[in-house]
Amino acid sequence: MSVRQMKFGLFLMGVGHHIAAWRHPDVRPEWCEDFTFFRRIAEIAEQGKLDMLFVSDGLAIEPLSHPAEIVRLEPFTLLAALAAVTNRIGLAGTASTTYNEPFHIARKFSSLDHISRGRAAWNIVTSYYEEEAYNFSQTAHLEHRLRYERAREFVDVVNGLWESWDEEALIRDQSSGIYFHAEKWRPLNHHGTHFSVRGPLNSSRPPQGKPVLIQAGSSQDGIRFAAHVAEVVFTAQSTLTDAQRFYQTVKQEAARAGRNPDHILIMPGVAPYIGRTEQEAREQYEQLQELIVPEVGLAFLSDYLGGIDFSGYSLDDPLPDDIPETNGNQSRRQLIIDLARRERLTIRQLYQRIAGARGHFTIIGTPEQVADQLEYWFLQGAADGFNLMFPYYPNGLQSFVEHVIPILQKRGLFRRNYEGTTLRDHLGLPVPKSIRV
Amino acid sequence: MSVRQMKFGLFLMGVGHHIAAWRHPDVRPEWCEDFTFFRRIAEIAEQGKLDMLFVSDGLAIEPLSHPAEIVRLEPFTLLAALAAVTNRIGLAGTASTTYNEPFHIARKFSSLDHISRGRAAWNIVTSYYEEEAYNFSQTAHLEHRLRYERAREFVDVVNGLWESWDEEALIRDQSSGIYFHAEKWRPLNHHGTHFSVRGPLNSSRPPQGKPVLIQAGSSQDGIRFAAHVAEVVFTAQSTLTDAQRFYQTVKQEAARAGRNPDHILIMPGVAPYIGRTEQEAREQYEQLQELIVPEVGLAFLSDYLGGIDFSGYSLDDPLPDDIPETNGNQSRRQLIIDLARRERLTIRQLYQRIAGARGHFTIIGTPEQVADQLEYWFLQGAADGFNLMFPYYPNGLQSFVEHVIPILQKRGLFRRNYEGTTLRDHLGLPVPKSIRV
Ligand SMILES: Cc1cc2nc3c(=O)[nH]c(=O)nc-3n(C[C@H](O)[C@H](O)[C@H](O)COP(=O)(O)O)c2cc1C
Ligand SMILES: Cc1cc2nc3c(=O)[nH]c(=O)nc-3n(C[C@H](O)[C@H](O)[C@H](O)COP(=O)(O)O)c2cc1C
Repeated sequence: MSVRQMKFGLFLMGVGHHIAAWRHPDVRPEWCEDFTFFRRIAEIAEQGKLDMLFVSDGLAIEPLSHPAEIVRLEPFTLLAALAAVTNRIGLAGTASTTYNEPFHIARKFSSLDHISRGRAAWNIVTSYYEEEAYNFSQTAHLEHRLRYERAREFVDVVNGLWESWDEEALIRDQSSGIYFHAEKWRPLNHHGTHFSVRGPLNSSRPPQGKPVLIQAGSSQDGIRFAAHVAEVVFTAQSTLTDAQRFYQTVKQEAARAGRNPDHILIMPGVAPYIGRTEQEAREQYEQLQELIVPEVGLAFLSDYLGGIDFSGYSLDDPLPDDIPETNGNQSRRQLIIDLARRERLTIRQLYQRIAGARGHFTIIGTPEQVADQLEYWFLQGAADGFNLMFPYYPNGLQSFVEHVIPILQKRGLFRRNYEGTTLRDHLGLPVPKSIRV
Repeated sequence: MSVRQMKFGLFLMGVGHHIAAWRHPDVRPEWCEDFTFFRRIAEIAEQGKLDMLFVSDGLAIEPLSHPAEIVRLEPFTLLAALAAVTNRIGLAGTASTTYNEPFHIARKFSSLDHISRGRAAWNIVTSYYEEEAYNFSQTAHLEHRLRYERAREFVDVVNGLWESWDEEALIRDQSSGIYFHAEKWRPLNHHGTHFSVRGPLNSSRPPQGKPVLIQAGSSQDGIRFAAHVAEVVFTAQSTLTDAQRFYQTVKQEAARAGRNPDHILIMPGVAPYIGRTEQEAREQYEQLQELIVPEVGLAFLSDYLGGIDFSGYSLDDPLPDDIPETNGNQSRRQLIIDLARRERLTIRQLYQRIAGARGHFTIIGTPEQVADQLEYWFLQGAADGFNLMFPYYPNGLQSFVEHVIPILQKRGLFRRNYEGTTLRDHLGLPVPKSIRV
């Protein structure tokens, strides 16, 4: 029997996750749209045998966005280009079910899966940016519950389209001249609340059967959705206890939905600051913190809390009591409020805390210390793996691959080599049978 | 002053344009979804200094489709992957304005232009497959005139989104911490008949200012549209006279629309069969013709004529007189009817003729003969270049690059080396100024 090992996603986000990453002297801000930069990162990640690269996405900008979310490469084009210059690493892209059509999404992921020979994954999001509505001829963002309702139907349609082609349908028999058996393809003929889609898909069965499905909503609706459809769950967790509770909840919900809990992997985000000494790691952290422009930090915090106006407050005041509800990202809002209350942070301290990793688990220390923390979360039922969010690239990743990965390998906690060729192989996820369910 | 030289696009279409290409003994039918196959083709094309690769597209299939249109790679993912493994060749992808949203299209082409460092082009189509409607929650295909009306507005929005970022807007000044000047970006605030799009685009100004715009509609609406927006026009022409007339019409319409006629290049499709002797070329042609399954050829013809039912006719009858109108591809339908009447073809002869290149200009001969024909069309005001449609890949392309290109180079009709780095450079098209018009 194989030993349980950690999984790693590498979360690409411009030149780094820290809000001031672009100001770091080792970084060129233009890299955020420079393919050679992403190619270099992908190569390092593949040397480190990481499971997958992950690209987030949004379909609108506003002045308060994280700098990495102002201008950026589009996930399908970026990941397809990376597919051509890598061999093993998985390629996960974000696509919204709120502002897309299922036929396009099914097809692009199937195509990416073909081009990469089985390395594609879809991070299914419902869009947290309310402004996306205005770029798609809508007057308002769809309401939170309806977004998830639409997402369920959207994923059903996409799953159905990926099953368009029976394995024996496309025979392409050169001697008889029969290209395919039309009676063995499966039009979908879906007629639902949000979509009508006839099918079949003009893409043959994806090499992985279907691309891996990832989900990252942590609200109640989000967790229920994940329990039904996700094979990987990304999540932002600041403390071990919260992470353990989340882990339990999702696994139990999955079991209740009739699924094998081992087939839904929980991967919290983690932001590692790695130094030869703890002191060096801390200096790295402080160097970035000092590069935060206060107005930008404050605006960023305000945005994360649904656009709250801080103009009546001093930076040294505590977070106000009455933070209004939002139709955007509810779980992130709650995470940030909890963090402020728990640690009694001032407004300034709070924006400084989220500027680095938006509330995700942060580790500052030596390679041994980083490995210890990851191991602890992994063994204490808080994580099946981690979504790595380096403060700035490529340095953080380089240190991690050179110094942390070998420690984890020595401890038997991480692979020394890719054992299979597909992302499903790396993650230990089953290949769906070629039969419509 | 630089001499006028031919431009070449390479039309990728599965394993070849001939309807029986997949049955050819040198071909493996699975190549149609195999990225390494397309990579090999792209490399040969780049050795030949061709201007661009071109990928067609459709968003539905039906049993009668050309085999290359049953399952295929999706253009954005295919072209982005090719961008990563090529250096100079242009990358043109087809995207429909009828079943897409302008924000997505503007963004994906901008991203492709960034990844390829200025080699992207958009083949703007209005969708000729009526069945696409059923994959996008529509009950009927939008009417021909309305498709073009929507296309005009769609292109206006995309052009506007590409101008979101003034060249000085994104200053990214590391020392002051100012990432961009929000007052220098340009939200679009478009409110039209078909779309409302706020903008700005979350992608900086494309390296080419804007990707090259290609159009291929040949109906009256199509030509008018091309004259206004296209920089390259693809067209199917069987005879020199028709091609000359089309060339004149488009250039005059462009001038009437206030444009410089040199900035709209006319590129008819051409299907070359190349042999060491004319006899060898003809045998190559015959070999493919013999591989056509009669039912498939007939179904293909019927499809191209809007679904006409041939069941009451013998294959040796002439084409019936009353071919019904279609809401699909009108210019192609007319081209095929004209061909049948002009050459008094039987139904069998007609499907055999379109099986190779769907009515496009076909040349069968030695490298010298092929070069002569291309030169003739080029010098007689019928073409600024050609869209190469090889019967099967990679052999046809390989012969062309090895034997025809050197002849054209010797005659001064084609470049010996890429002189610039972008597709606009290759095609001699101007870079738009960074000012909203
Ligand atoms: C690691 C991580 C990455 C995410 N990436 C994206 C993203 O790229 N785009 C997006 O719109 N939402 C993203 N989200 C947000 C969620 O997918 C989800 O839409 C959001 O949490 C709102 O849902 P909820 O209210 O159920 O939490 C991400 C969340 C996490 C934890
Ligand atoms: C060389 C060439 C390539 C084309 N490629 C496509 C394509 O990939 N997808 C598509 O829907 N239409 C394609 N078309 C069709 C046209 O773009 C256009 O939609 C069609 O001719 C109908 O418009 P019309 O009635 O104005 O001619 C192509 C046409 C030509 C000549």
